[in-house]
Amino acid sequence: MKGKLYGIGTGPGDPELLTLKAINTIERCSVIAVPKTSGDSEKVAFTIVEKYVAGKELHECHFSMIRDLEERKKARLLAADGIIKYLDEGKDVAFVTLGDPTTYSTYMYMHEIIAGKGYETEIVPGITSFAASAAALGISLCEGDETLIIIPASQNDRIDELLKEEGNKVIMKSGRDLAGVLEKLKELGYGDKTKIACEVTMENQRLFNSIEEYEKAQEGGYFTLVIVKEKV
Amino acid sequence: MKGKLYGIGTGPGDPELLTLKAINTIERCSVIAVPKTSGDSEKVAFTIVEKYVAGKELHECHFSMIRDLEERKKARLLAADGIIKYLDEGKDVAFVTLGDPTTYSTYMYMHEIIAGKGYETEIVPGITSFAASAAALGISLCEGDETLIIIPASQNDRIDELLKEEGNKVIMKSGRDLAGVLEKLKELGYGDKTKIACEVTMENQRLFNSIEEYEKAQEGGYFTLVIVKEKV
Repeated sequence: MKGKLYGIGTGPGDPELLTLKAINTIERCSVIAVPKTSGDSEKVAFTIVEKYVAGKELHECHFSMIRDLEERKKARLLAADGIIKYLDEGKDVAFVTLGDPTTYSTYMYMHEIIAGKGYETEIVPGITSFAASAAALGISLCEGDETLIIIPASQNDRIDELLKEEGNKVIMKSGRDLAGVLEKLKELGYGDKTKIACEVTMENQRLFNSIEEYEKAQEGGYFTLVIVKEKV
Repeated sequence: MKGKLYGIGTGPGDPELLTLKAINTIERCSVIAVPKTSGDSEKVAFTIVEKYVAGKELHECHFSMIRDLEERKKARLLAADGIIKYLDEGKDVAFVTLGDPTTYSTYMYMHEIIAGKGYETEIVPGITSFAASAAALGISLCEGDETLIIIPASQNDRIDELLKEEGNKVIMKSGRDLAGVLEKLKELGYGDKTKIACEVTMENQRLFNSIEEYEKAQEGGYFTLVIVKEKV
């Protein structure tokens, strides 16, 4: 009897935003897999579930940020093998991932490889950083007939075009590109229609109601999410 | 001392997808507000939290589907007054809403009016139907550099243009427009790239991996969500 792989969204940071299903699933699994990259998000994902993992085997999945596509694929297969080892021993594995597993997460690479090999898999959705950011800011992401466009900013060669699209926008994974994105939004006249959340739902959450407010504060964060509203 | 209004996302249907924060907040409130329209989603929102509301006052918020904008605004102000009555008595009110309160929910209309009058408010985010649908289908919504466009289909006069946009797409609130949307997606060559979830995470959940599969089954649902992937 093979084990089952669960991809579990931990939500954006506040452990109270875990779903009952995430907690119940983690409690049933004997192995907790945590992705390890150079980033900080994995440490946070583990911290969120820490209270529920006592006595379980802990497995770190190493994802190096490899530029070469073929090398990256090889590294992913290797990471998947690390999980499969447990599944072959009949152990259920809970792979925890910050936010939601289907939204820009490394979990899906494991899921595709492991499900593709015929292992049983299940995804437990999580609260996305954009839903949590809108909630914290007290604004809607989309109402009525409004379109919502989720844009990953990092090294996106269509970013100029996408920022001009009609509809509300969420800009994710901005990282080093954030300053450039904010500059473009100001040029487009979106300065006051841009809301920014840093480290949302974490202890050091900061919220900004305009680009001006954000720039004055001079305190960006590792987890920064931008929401642009057509209407304010 | 005035009461506080909480807008609480119940997630898409499965009570196990409630967050701890949603449950804890509901348990602290003495009044539960449930939106009432002609639709079914409100009944579902109440059913999801039913287990946690024993002994609380129940308030039904009536939102009629009024075409005239001015009349609709008046009806919303009246609905808000119904909630304010409790807040003025010092009672905390938990307004429950299916999915996430910031994503196409009637809650935000109440929030804007009531927060605008200076009452304390807080939004508790919920699992969106699109994250839950992608999870159930075992697919990602977006990976790497992919854009995700959330499109409300109902009476959307830009729908043709939006379906042609580059990026993955989620089509929500399709209702009576669903057949037309699927027809357009087939014309655009997206038949096999279109995944459909009906009543996701509910007892009668049905999943379809292509438009053909969906049409063969001949069993649409009240809650139908469409995901279109650029790459499969």
